[in-house]
Amino acid sequence: MGNRHFGEVIGVKEGDVFADRQALHDAGVHLPTVAGIDGDSKLGSSSIVLNGGYVDDLDLGEEIIYTGHGGNKDGKQVAHQSWDDFGNKGLLISELQGLPVRVTRGAKHKSPFSPASGYQYAGLYRVTDHFEEVGKNGFNICRFRLEKIDTPTSLFTGNVGSLPAGKAAPGRTSSTVIRVVRDTALSREIKKLYGYKCQVCGVAIEVKGVFYAEGAHIKPLGKPHNGADQPDNLLCLCPNHHVMLDKGVFGINDDYTLYRMSGKIKVHAKHSLNKAHLKYHREHICIK
Amino acid sequence: MGNRHFGEVIGVKEGDVFADRQALHDAGVHLPTVAGIDGDSKLGSSSIVLNGGYVDDLDLGEEIIYTGHGGNKDGKQVAHQSWDDFGNKGLLISELQGLPVRVTRGAKHKSPFSPASGYQYAGLYRVTDHFEEVGKNGFNICRFRLEKIDTPTSLFTGNVGSLPAGKAAPGRTSSTVIRVVRDTALSREIKKLYGYKCQVCGVAIEVKGVFYAEGAHIKPLGKPHNGADQPDNLLCLCPNHHVMLDKGVFGINDDYTLYRMSGKIKVHAKHSLNKAHLKYHREHICIK
Repeated sequence: MGNRHFGEVIGVKEGDVFADRQALHDAGVHLPTVAGIDGDSKLGSSSIVLNGGYVDDLDLGEEIIYTGHGGNKDGKQVAHQSWDDFGNKGLLISELQGLPVRVTRGAKHKSPFSPASGYQYAGLYRVTDHFEEVGKNGFNICRFRLEKIDTPTSLFTGNVGSLPAGKAAPGRTSSTVIRVVRDTALSREIKKLYGYKCQVCGVAIEVKGVFYAEGAHIKPLGKPHNGADQPDNLLCLCPNHHVMLDKGVFGINDDYTLYRMSGKIKVHAKHSLNKAHLKYHREHICIK
Repeated sequence: MGNRHFGEVIGVKEGDVFADRQALHDAGVHLPTVAGIDGDSKLGSSSIVLNGGYVDDLDLGEEIIYTGHGGNKDGKQVAHQSWDDFGNKGLLISELQGLPVRVTRGAKHKSPFSPASGYQYAGLYRVTDHFEEVGKNGFNICRFRLEKIDTPTSLFTGNVGSLPAGKAAPGRTSSTVIRVVRDTALSREIKKLYGYKCQVCGVAIEVKGVFYAEGAHIKPLGKPHNGADQPDNLLCLCPNHHVMLDKGVFGINDDYTLYRMSGKIKVHAKHSLNKAHLKYHREHICIK
């Protein structure tokens, strides 16, 4: 491999329609002519095609819950999927490294956003989450949440090999991580209860006498998890352990020891964690 | 105090004009009738008024570089400002806790967004950064970047006193921290150079064999800093040390020892840091 093109393709704009997979390939939008994921377990995946191949796909337009690769025969799941699969691993890399993924919908994909015929390029999406569940056909499936990217994303290839020169006057859009803090009364009270100390490591970040911590949900908010924004689903964590909880590096057992990592989470006498949410997180987020 | 109202005010919408400060007070948009910041060094600041009082304010509409409180006489700075000031401390709390700030512009505020007369409510903003500089009149000033909040923000008061019940079906907008990862070729190469290990603490976050780290700029991107997206301005950090660098908990000396914190940052033989950028960060971001 060695090189892979992420982001917009010159000469192709959102809404463009292509007659068949070969035309998509020729345009540089999606290179494989059969596989749905342009998988690369080293550089990340740069494009996917939705074309009705997976019964568990959920397409809300700006947000897509996408089923990973593997175990599929004629549109039915007949075996478990694996995170080691090169397509799934590739999408995981794209998620953790913030790489844009080109999305194309085919006419066979059942959604109000599909084209009448051929393949329509739907623009750039970012992979925001991954999780695992038992699909409609009874097998474990790897799932990814993709969200549409509003701002234009510059072109780049994955394998530069040496340090690029960068830009002297990049503007704020070149930020590598944007952290939007939007507190709620509940998360504020949880953080106060713990004195802004991380429940896993005890770290508190202090900026001129003002403390910073993050409210972290155990069972995630939003579709398809639909976790609650309630005290027994909320933790006070440092940014590191928040990322690790969200990405499933560790889970929490019912006795508050950590799952898949050593340690124990501190829980205040006035606070308790919902065991069903802990179980959901262990089974769907903190996966092998 | 004990209670403070953050967010939208029922019955008031963006664009509403008020005859004078008393009317703004009566509507509940901005309570103090003279001060520009509704300062509260415990709960955070919930509103500001721009009315030409500070020569260093910069108003780009959706983005405002706001000068903090203190040392001002008849629109001129005559003394240094302090981060201990209750207005400035209040805005710092609003920044670190993600609290929404109501913004109002007065007719005396020189900007294309000011009303012809009276005071116009401009909606909710979030404080995204704070830094320090020498103002036009030669004194240290405390500065805040505010950015407009697009999505409606629910009402809440600062001091709840006990754990609120929260919401069983909150939707994704109740997230407490949204982390948008948007990698660039440069930040990717920097992270690879360090094996995704934090240059401060050595931690690497591993998710199923895929590593996560953050590219962090020393001199920040965007106005008014205008830092470069170039290798000598970029670090590979864990989320914790990224927050601490951005919020000025520590700086970096020319010999790569840490400033205001013990330790030393590891710098790879193929990488070096720009001393002018390190100095800028120590003087403007990593402030007392």
